[in-house]
Amino acid sequence: MAKIFRVNMADQSVAEEAVPSKWELLGGRGFTSRVIMDEITPGCHPLGPNNKFIMAPGIVTGSAAATSGRVSIGGKSPLTGGTKESNAGTPVSQMLGRLRIKGIIVENQPESGWWMLKIDKDGVETLPADDLQGRSTTETNQAMFERYGDQVGVVSIGTTGENTMAMAGVCFSDAEGRASRYAGRGGLGAVMGSKGLKAIVVDQTGAPGVEVKNREVFRAGERKMLSALQTHDVTKPGGTLNTFGTNALINVMNEAGGLPTRNFRSGSFDGADNISGETLADIIRERGGMGKSTHSCSPGCVIECSNIYAKSDGSEHVSVMEYESVWALGANLGVDDMDDVAEMIRICNDIGVDTIEAGVTLGVAMEAGVAQFGDGKAAISLLNEVDQATPTGRILGNGATFTGKAYGVTRVPAVKGQGMPAYEPRVVKGLGVTYATSPQGADHTAGYTNAQEILGVGGKLDPTAVEGKGDLSRTMQAATAFIDAHGYCLFTAFAMLDIASGMEGMVETVNGVLGTNWTVDDVGRVGMEILESEREFNAQAGFTKADDRLPEFMSNETLPPLNEINNIPDTVMDSVFGS
Amino acid sequence: MAKIFRVNMADQSVAEEAVPSKWELLGGRGFTSRVIMDEITPGCHPLGPNNKFIMAPGIVTGSAAATSGRVSIGGKSPLTGGTKESNAGTPVSQMLGRLRIKGIIVENQPESGWWMLKIDKDGVETLPADDLQGRSTTETNQAMFERYGDQVGVVSIGTTGENTMAMAGVCFSDAEGRASRYAGRGGLGAVMGSKGLKAIVVDQTGAPGVEVKNREVFRAGERKMLSALQTHDVTKPGGTLNTFGTNALINVMNEAGGLPTRNFRSGSFDGADNISGETLADIIRERGGMGKSTHSCSPGCVIECSNIYAKSDGSEHVSVMEYESVWALGANLGVDDMDDVAEMIRICNDIGVDTIEAGVTLGVAMEAGVAQFGDGKAAISLLNEVDQATPTGRILGNGATFTGKAYGVTRVPAVKGQGMPAYEPRVVKGLGVTYATSPQGADHTAGYTNAQEILGVGGKLDPTAVEGKGDLSRTMQAATAFIDAHGYCLFTAFAMLDIASGMEGMVETVNGVLGTNWTVDDVGRVGMEILESEREFNAQAGFTKADDRLPEFMSNETLPPLNEINNIPDTVMDSVFGS
Repeated sequence: MAKIFRVNMADQSVAEEAVPSKWELLGGRGFTSRVIMDEITPGCHPLGPNNKFIMAPGIVTGSAAATSGRVSIGGKSPLTGGTKESNAGTPVSQMLGRLRIKGIIVENQPESGWWMLKIDKDGVETLPADDLQGRSTTETNQAMFERYGDQVGVVSIGTTGENTMAMAGVCFSDAEGRASRYAGRGGLGAVMGSKGLKAIVVDQTGAPGVEVKNREVFRAGERKMLSALQTHDVTKPGGTLNTFGTNALINVMNEAGGLPTRNFRSGSFDGADNISGETLADIIRERGGMGKSTHSCSPGCVIECSNIYAKSDGSEHVSVMEYESVWALGANLGVDDMDDVAEMIRICNDIGVDTIEAGVTLGVAMEAGVAQFGDGKAAISLLNEVDQATPTGRILGNGATFTGKAYGVTRVPAVKGQGMPAYEPRVVKGLGVTYATSPQGADHTAGYTNAQEILGVGGKLDPTAVEGKGDLSRTMQAATAFIDAHGYCLFTAFAMLDIASGMEGMVETVNGVLGTNWTVDDVGRVGMEILESEREFNAQAGFTKADDRLPEFMSNETLPPLNEINNIPDTVMDSVFGS
Repeated sequence: MAKIFRVNMADQSVAEEAVPSKWELLGGRGFTSRVIMDEITPGCHPLGPNNKFIMAPGIVTGSAAATSGRVSIGGKSPLTGGTKESNAGTPVSQMLGRLRIKGIIVENQPESGWWMLKIDKDGVETLPADDLQGRSTTETNQAMFERYGDQVGVVSIGTTGENTMAMAGVCFSDAEGRASRYAGRGGLGAVMGSKGLKAIVVDQTGAPGVEVKNREVFRAGERKMLSALQTHDVTKPGGTLNTFGTNALINVMNEAGGLPTRNFRSGSFDGADNISGETLADIIRERGGMGKSTHSCSPGCVIECSNIYAKSDGSEHVSVMEYESVWALGANLGVDDMDDVAEMIRICNDIGVDTIEAGVTLGVAMEAGVAQFGDGKAAISLLNEVDQATPTGRILGNGATFTGKAYGVTRVPAVKGQGMPAYEPRVVKGLGVTYATSPQGADHTAGYTNAQEILGVGGKLDPTAVEGKGDLSRTMQAATAFIDAHGYCLFTAFAMLDIASGMEGMVETVNGVLGTNWTVDDVGRVGMEILESEREFNAQAGFTKADDRLPEFMSNETLPPLNEINNIPDTVMDSVFGS
């Protein structure tokens, strides 16, 4: 039987609860978003005792289903003030799934001190962790492996989470124990920090494994999915993601004129080639050592899009050089030195911040003149100020919107207080609709219409056309919520969009685990139910359609080189979820 | 004929316009709030080209009507993100009224540089003002008097307005030319700064005077009002306000247990007597020199509640030691040294910040440990950082809510992003309803139920009782909007609430100027129309009833010594304006 653990940080007590029937079919984002709506007072302070920190593996996570190693965390976001789900690919997710833990709900706040959770087959235990205070995520992981052996999974926050900064993410260990896999967005690291929770260790020894209601259905689905993933050009072995990682997108987006550059002042970057996926693969190959250009974030992934970057002497520098991170801390800052970008990502990982929010924030700070565009060393120094929580670090650590306000900058690329990812919404207009209308704030993963608009996956649409983009965004947002709930990596969608049997297979694996009889037609319905629970929370927290808008400057400024402007009518934004 | 001047800062051009009939009866807050609703895009960035900076004298302002020297400014607030009106008592208001200027609407932004407006009988002129950049309000006033003679009125911003900080107010010259009269709330100094506008000089030479449609009605009303003001214990010569100024409230509120102390941790302050109105009057009397404990902010005021504080050598230190300022920078910080408080007020005046927001912000910063409660010298030093726009100054300069977010403080006494004034809403519950529901954000002047709840003016109600407080707040908010629109000082309300003929007289002076036939029964209607225009703008800007709430911590923490908690039901908050 799956179970829920409720941790009360006020007295560090833990209660094990049966899963109420209303939550029985929920996992991952489906679980976290529902608990947020059912249990968190919408008006509460995100860093106060009435917010909750929630963690839940996907429905199939921990099973043999390929590329399903995702875990969701949730709570009221200190960055957006609304609902927040963020997920990561990590072995921790699979350990939780195998321990049959539906979810962990952390409540209240301790009088003082730092704490950790130890999770194993016997349950959940709270332990003092004052000795971990001030440590980096890497140091925290190291301490945990020394204490509990190197087979455990570790969840941690860095100094920024301890200091409750709104760009703090939650760090998960990767397959080899690195502190590199992030549920970064929305500041949930600050929520974890506000609970006095520095780390969570998961030991799966003796775990019973994921309960599968219908093994036959599950196995059939699993095979169909695997076949699709191994066939599609984007996801197959030796395919785009496997060869170049997500950073393959630097050149693609640059050529499309949709690579936001120097705080969204241009859609193309003259230094793009220096930080591209192709160059990245070359550098890793040349420098050798620990460097790997294909690497999986969690066991059982067939895509293996992760990588490990090496220093010039071949020693390991950082994992992962993702497109979003390289863009945010590279093109968006006008920085084209791959080593500087790698060092920034390493710092973000160690101090516990979301690389996207960090990059968007530094872009706004450069717009304000705090540093010059292109000055990678200055950017590194500013990230160190965030670590040290200097006054400047306190400004930057609270994100792009906050930094814009601090310096009176009107060009802040953010929606609902969350910085925009690596796709120019004036060019990739469907993604603009997603940025504007997602209950999560600006988020490319919330409804990745770039697939159709730029990559030609799931059809081929003109990115700069407005027509149909409201419907496209809605469909993709619902499908994404389905994927996020069941533990699959979003990248499975590339294959699922083009290969019908793959999508059927995904639904069958879910049916196998849950004992449901859903068809592909249920994907949208299930996804939309999740979105509705998120939107309901936001509405009660005070969000209106005025929050479902792109920033004003994008309607006033054309973006070179395509000279596109935001021309998506408000009516299209409002059509996504009805008004 | 009254006229409107529209200033386009993009090319520094000025257009004179006739008053459209829809705005004919509007003045002061009635005018600014209506123009905000009619002309400003609710979603615009408060510091961007699409916001406007609006200024309008009250309807009777400049006439012989007593205590009517108020001018309103308006725009979208950088502090709240909603509609904003703030008003000040100053001779500038009367000069504008006598020049028959209905309103000035400043639009767009210059490419570069600093500018000023010169207003006289011939119209409005834009002039370069780069030489004024970086100057204090006092220095700016001095420069203007040297250039244009000491009979002009001056409007200016300090360095904080230049740096577009959200706690920047707009400074008006007093009757002797001091830079001391503030329309402080809501950050409109930053809006003025965002327009590149450093100063406005008004010369009333040759002004035709206020046009009075019906002199007989006006004179009759004027006499009734004057008689009421000269009779009522609060407003009469030698009465409370005239003897001790507004600071008489320190002891009153302290004894009532409603004087917010050390960031709203207590309702009484052990050092209250050291900063009380009685002590203030004693000090001013003893030190002599320029010090005056009764002084009028603008000619023709019969209350004369203003004061001029002296240093120990008798030389002038600062004007005005208002209750709100002394509370904010005194009791709220645990500071009981009158000279330290005076110095903080002087700095606020010179750098151009709202003393209330400054004090609430420093209280939050002390809560975060940035300085210790009670350390007046540290507080002075922090205000100097705001002037210098250091990183810490950038945090503090953006107000209490912003500072709370920077440091992860959950105890932030603010509504709609605006810091609370000097009345504990857990004790003075009607004022709590006003703080929560006013379209202006937390603001005591928006509906001063303290009159009935503590002072026993206009009836006597139990402050801690909840019943009837929704209705009380609504009535007071509407009456206040009426007063703010017509140019009267809010303090006239003390007499008007108790003396029926005084209220009649006020309406008659308005009828005299406008040619209307309103009765006392129209006061609520006219006031409510203004409030509705403000609420409509806020709704379109994204405000909901979730924004009409007191901060969460006030529902979790009882306030000593009365041990009161916020127990006003949401339904009462929602009843004020309907849902």
